[in-house]
Amino acid sequence: MSKEQYDLVILGGGTAGYVAAIRATQLGKKVAIVENSLLGGTCLHKGCIPTKALLKSAEVMRTINHASDFGVDVDSFKLNYEKIQERKQEIVSQMHNGVSQLMKYNEIAVFNGNGRILGPSLFSPQSGTISVEYEDGESELIPNSNVLIATGSDPLSLPFLPFDHQVVLSSDDMLNLQNLPQNLAIIGAGVIGLEFASMMTDFGVDVTVIEAGERIAPTESKTVAKTLKQDLETRGVTFHEKVQLSAEDISQQDDVIEIKIAESEQRFDKVLVAIGRKPRTEDIGLNNTKIQTTDKGHIITNDYQQTADQHIYAAGDCVGKLQLAHVGSKEGMVAVEHMFDQTPLPINYQIMPRCIYTQPEVASLGLNVEEAKAEGYKAKAVKVPFKAIGKAVIEDTKNQSGFCEIVIDQDHDTVLGINMIGPHVTELINEASLLQFMNGSTLELGLTTHAHPSLSEVLMELGLKVENRSIHV
Amino acid sequence: MSKEQYDLVILGGGTAGYVAAIRATQLGKKVAIVENSLLGGTCLHKGCIPTKALLKSAEVMRTINHASDFGVDVDSFKLNYEKIQERKQEIVSQMHNGVSQLMKYNEIAVFNGNGRILGPSLFSPQSGTISVEYEDGESELIPNSNVLIATGSDPLSLPFLPFDHQVVLSSDDMLNLQNLPQNLAIIGAGVIGLEFASMMTDFGVDVTVIEAGERIAPTESKTVAKTLKQDLETRGVTFHEKVQLSAEDISQQDDVIEIKIAESEQRFDKVLVAIGRKPRTEDIGLNNTKIQTTDKGHIITNDYQQTADQHIYAAGDCVGKLQLAHVGSKEGMVAVEHMFDQTPLPINYQIMPRCIYTQPEVASLGLNVEEAKAEGYKAKAVKVPFKAIGKAVIEDTKNQSGFCEIVIDQDHDTVLGINMIGPHVTELINEASLLQFMNGSTLELGLTTHAHPSLSEVLMELGLKVENRSIHV
Repeated sequence: MSKEQYDLVILGGGTAGYVAAIRATQLGKKVAIVENSLLGGTCLHKGCIPTKALLKSAEVMRTINHASDFGVDVDSFKLNYEKIQERKQEIVSQMHNGVSQLMKYNEIAVFNGNGRILGPSLFSPQSGTISVEYEDGESELIPNSNVLIATGSDPLSLPFLPFDHQVVLSSDDMLNLQNLPQNLAIIGAGVIGLEFASMMTDFGVDVTVIEAGERIAPTESKTVAKTLKQDLETRGVTFHEKVQLSAEDISQQDDVIEIKIAESEQRFDKVLVAIGRKPRTEDIGLNNTKIQTTDKGHIITNDYQQTADQHIYAAGDCVGKLQLAHVGSKEGMVAVEHMFDQTPLPINYQIMPRCIYTQPEVASLGLNVEEAKAEGYKAKAVKVPFKAIGKAVIEDTKNQSGFCEIVIDQDHDTVLGINMIGPHVTELINEASLLQFMNGSTLELGLTTHAHPSLSEVLMELGLKVENRSIHV
Repeated sequence: MSKEQYDLVILGGGTAGYVAAIRATQLGKKVAIVENSLLGGTCLHKGCIPTKALLKSAEVMRTINHASDFGVDVDSFKLNYEKIQERKQEIVSQMHNGVSQLMKYNEIAVFNGNGRILGPSLFSPQSGTISVEYEDGESELIPNSNVLIATGSDPLSLPFLPFDHQVVLSSDDMLNLQNLPQNLAIIGAGVIGLEFASMMTDFGVDVTVIEAGERIAPTESKTVAKTLKQDLETRGVTFHEKVQLSAEDISQQDDVIEIKIAESEQRFDKVLVAIGRKPRTEDIGLNNTKIQTTDKGHIITNDYQQTADQHIYAAGDCVGKLQLAHVGSKEGMVAVEHMFDQTPLPINYQIMPRCIYTQPEVASLGLNVEEAKAEGYKAKAVKVPFKAIGKAVIEDTKNQSGFCEIVIDQDHDTVLGINMIGPHVTELINEASLLQFMNGSTLELGLTTHAHPSLSEVLMELGLKVENRSIHV
């Protein structure tokens, strides 16, 4: 048994876990993290960071493809995918090193092994002691007063098309491709599928997206989804919506896979299955606790991330309310503050920003107008197109289809949601997030002076338009 | 005499003027603009918009120059300056057309001639009737109840080095260069000089900047100025500070100019004089009014933009408090609301965002720490470097010198100012502007969930750091 008693042991050193750990040390607590892979978790190694690093290279590729529009004539150029991978890895390594430094600086103990929660025992009247098993078969126990489960999630596979990591790929596999395929099928047109579709088409890969549901980007408004689809189609992506695949539609021979889509057999070098993520909540000892999970295995908590075992909390993808890094870290902080008798605000999921880092970028928070009406609000959508904003015209004179839309509850004059598609909206959404967190009005947004020229002026015009006093639209 | 009586006649159809005109029509007023050149004024034709259009091409050029860092190997490329100019003009034309449409849509009369304010007469007991003189020598009078002077400003020249528009250039001339010079001297290292320095060095021009004052970017903090200078120097710009030129230092022969800088004669193809702007307040009939001006010719107004003649207001560069388009349009709106008995908030110049669109970008509002201390505040600066922010590392792994700094009044725990240098800070400053307009706290900024990964996370970390609870720094 570890000699030391911890105030808090965290299962999982991903974004939710390590941020919570730091927050706990700020409250003067003694904290340990148990991580069986790398600190930084999915976000840093298999999610946000490496995809955005690759997407940055895709952006450079796209800029060069259209450089003559901006007055720079490029004779010839060649994609160096090895270098792109190297750059991505360099970024991940720099940030991984940063997280490790943060652990040292904050004096957080890191146990590199598999953590499991134990039940009550002679030594410990309540469940929660953590057993860590190491690769070499050794193990030790970490006694503690509180546990935070932040074990994250894994890519979900199709039952009839398991990942073989060679042809049938998860997003993890995609990030580590050493060569680009000629053509790629992407099953699932959610955030992950769409980001890879945008990236791979910019890299010159022939991309086909197959979505079982009604339409792509199901979490976004219809007009945002339509605008994104049109843009990706123009750039070469083929979409098939309402195509529910089954085992009979798939045949695989050696390094090629054939998929029957709308009665036609199509051959692909690689298939990315991006149909969602499943929580890592098996084999962590939940059976030794009172913790309850949903049908899908997500841990059930109250508004303060507390499970049915009052000294055990959960945060991040294993809770699965919004599987986003910044939501995970917020949940981690709320959990820690609640367990150590602070007074955190519970998370309002309706004001959490959500981003899709495609080209064009998509960002939103709260409800779109269809959702708001379905929930019974007397909802009104007010829209400002980016083509009314000078800086957006400067950014891209050719494609001015983007817009920013705000959804108003007409009964209470409050903002129910904001959705945006266009240049740099994954930055602009943060101003909307501040407005919502501070409970600001559209008039306050509209009266705030925005630098000219800036893309953010779209928010100012939007605020003014709700008040029937917009200037440029 | 024009048959119609207007509620408001605006001298000047630039950003301050046309925005004020629209605002007045929203209040149900009958409005005319007198403009002797093009609607949209300096910002649209000689300022913000064309410079940012050229800077966008410079950005593309820079991206291509460094494309191999991102894994795209470019064999050869060539700058097509004719195309760059064409693109700039296309953007200006599109937006000019937009402003003209706005005038029609809002039923604002536009008189294309030189406007002058007349004194009291038999027909009009108070000064303010506008006389418009047309190019063909014709003229007419426009009777009105209120006047807004928004005549703008012109580039200031050096007395011993007048603009010849061939070798000695104003910023207006620079924007219309049909060919790039081999080398360029820029006299004055303020916003305009620095933006052209950044642009021209990216276009491959050999740039030398000569500043009479202590240092470049005098309106920004010392560390921001130093960081910007270092970056521009790395990209090839030569700076000479504390060099006060006089007539003896200059000699011009044919198409070449020689400037003696620090005892050494240097030859330049072109010289940009960017030492400031002077208000256009001559020959507009101020002598027929009670209006007072400063030594430099700026119109003196009260907090609501009202001059000593109560029915005459002024806004924009001719007032000269902060010569920025978004400040001008705000002043125009305040003026109109005040004259038509609304209750506008007077402008708080301490929360107006200020931007320099160099690479790296610079943005600020309020006081920097040196200014705050000089004004007697017990000021503290708190800084977060962009290298702690994942998205910034992704944007540029090589140059991570940028940062964001907040200045706190320790006596009252309020934000006195924010200054930033780094990627897209000209967008990020708008979130800071919203925070300040809503009188938000650093804790509110820090507790607002920011999308991960985004550059704006720097503001969240900054808010948390002021509260001694930052996560990543």
